[in-house]
Amino acid sequence: MIIGIVGLGLIGGSLCKAIKAKTKHTVYGFDIDQSINSYAVLDKSIDAILNKQNLSDCDYVLLSVYPKATIDYLEENASFIKDGAVVIDCGGVKRSICEQCFNIASKRNFAFIGGHPMAGLHQSGFKYSKADLFLGASMILTPQNTDDISLLQKVTEFIKSIGFASVTATTPENHDRIIAFTSQLAHVVSNAYVKSPQAKVHKGFSAGSYKDLTRVAKLNENMWTELFLENKDNLIFELEHIISALSQYKTALENDDEDTLKALLKDGSDRKKAIDN
Amino acid sequence: MIIGIVGLGLIGGSLCKAIKAKTKHTVYGFDIDQSINSYAVLDKSIDAILNKQNLSDCDYVLLSVYPKATIDYLEENASFIKDGAVVIDCGGVKRSICEQCFNIASKRNFAFIGGHPMAGLHQSGFKYSKADLFLGASMILTPQNTDDISLLQKVTEFIKSIGFASVTATTPENHDRIIAFTSQLAHVVSNAYVKSPQAKVHKGFSAGSYKDLTRVAKLNENMWTELFLENKDNLIFELEHIISALSQYKTALENDDEDTLKALLKDGSDRKKAIDN
Repeated sequence: MIIGIVGLGLIGGSLCKAIKAKTKHTVYGFDIDQSINSYAVLDKSIDAILNKQNLSDCDYVLLSVYPKATIDYLEENASFIKDGAVVIDCGGVKRSICEQCFNIASKRNFAFIGGHPMAGLHQSGFKYSKADLFLGASMILTPQNTDDISLLQKVTEFIKSIGFASVTATTPENHDRIIAFTSQLAHVVSNAYVKSPQAKVHKGFSAGSYKDLTRVAKLNENMWTELFLENKDNLIFELEHIISALSQYKTALENDDEDTLKALLKDGSDRKKAIDN
Repeated sequence: MIIGIVGLGLIGGSLCKAIKAKTKHTVYGFDIDQSINSYAVLDKSIDAILNKQNLSDCDYVLLSVYPKATIDYLEENASFIKDGAVVIDCGGVKRSICEQCFNIASKRNFAFIGGHPMAGLHQSGFKYSKADLFLGASMILTPQNTDDISLLQKVTEFIKSIGFASVTATTPENHDRIIAFTSQLAHVVSNAYVKSPQAKVHKGFSAGSYKDLTRVAKLNENMWTELFLENKDNLIFELEHIISALSQYKTALENDDEDTLKALLKDGSDRKKAIDN
């Protein structure tokens, strides 16, 4: 097959490399940074630069750019995508993307499916991309019609062929609600954590817990700002929830309320045990 | 030398095993759970059970029990500790412990030093203890007189001989302020994180960030309640700080304020980069 990949950042670059490493497919790739296109050809991450002409040859088109750019690209290039092709975006929010891209695809004869690879690094850009980024990871898919089983089976087979361990199909609404908790909140909390005045002087005073809590504090603020605003209702809900939870521990401490503090900690600990088991 | 270890939990048990594995010292150990004492003798983690008689033979006494029990033990047993011995506690808070234990030691001819090994697991108890828990870790020491260099050198040599990579000396006040941030806040935030209603349904929707943020959510609520209350001023400060920081992102989201949200994220990201480099 021929696979077109739009956006050669961490995810797009890793998709190119994974497909080249694990399959015989031809890969065309495109980034707005021309030097990355040239480099990706030289290091054989892609077979050629993707353009409006060879886009028409692609069986799959994978969009790994920011949310607004995803919609813009599909609007501008829908007429060049061949009948029967499958377009999958790989961004971090799904409602806004899917609503508009399902609509664009419905006027043509290709299929659009929302996608979100559950893999990443706290670094971004083509230079950190790698063929094994998705090994063992889950890929979330948000198809327009969950009853189009043959399409889902075909896409699942393709996704697994490039290294993903599993595929989880859901609705865009459900995706955005859960991802606000599992990924977006984690990045905000980690980013907020390092703002303490003590953060500068922690050396010699920290074990694994500090390291874990702050690992994703370093992030691409342009990308995350766009993702957070596209999912603001869900992220605000999660922020309110954790602020309220943290305030309960604080009040218990202020009141020297040992029983309440212990009960709050036991509740969190029990929930974590229940999730993991 | 002869080393006495009081409290055979994760830390005390690991100290016994590390000393037996890496030195020729004799180890006497004691836990309030008699079955653990018996087991520790059988598995050769200790040479004998520590009691008031053989306590008098110990060159070092390491106290790895909860804060209040540390003070109670030293009050009750100070008269059995030999002249010239060094007593080090291994608990998570230092002001309350040191104030009282410095006072007890000052009436006798042994030295007391506050200690805090920067190592742990999210599991507690003797059964998780292991000889290599402290390999590569830092040990914080809070001596009464920072100018007693010969004592500090002697203790540092002993600490390193059992596997610690480094020793950091500081005041009890400074320890408690920084540890509220690097360890205590991490445990509260992680414990609060899993209280979201989405926590139950995250499977297939999470990558490394969720896993990192919630690793220490499962904790020993009895131990941490005591540690948190002993350090409530510092922990309340850190909780207020992170609640305030999180509220700023929330307000920016509510106002669709892209510039502020991006600036907040960039600030956190820049701080993390500055700390790590």
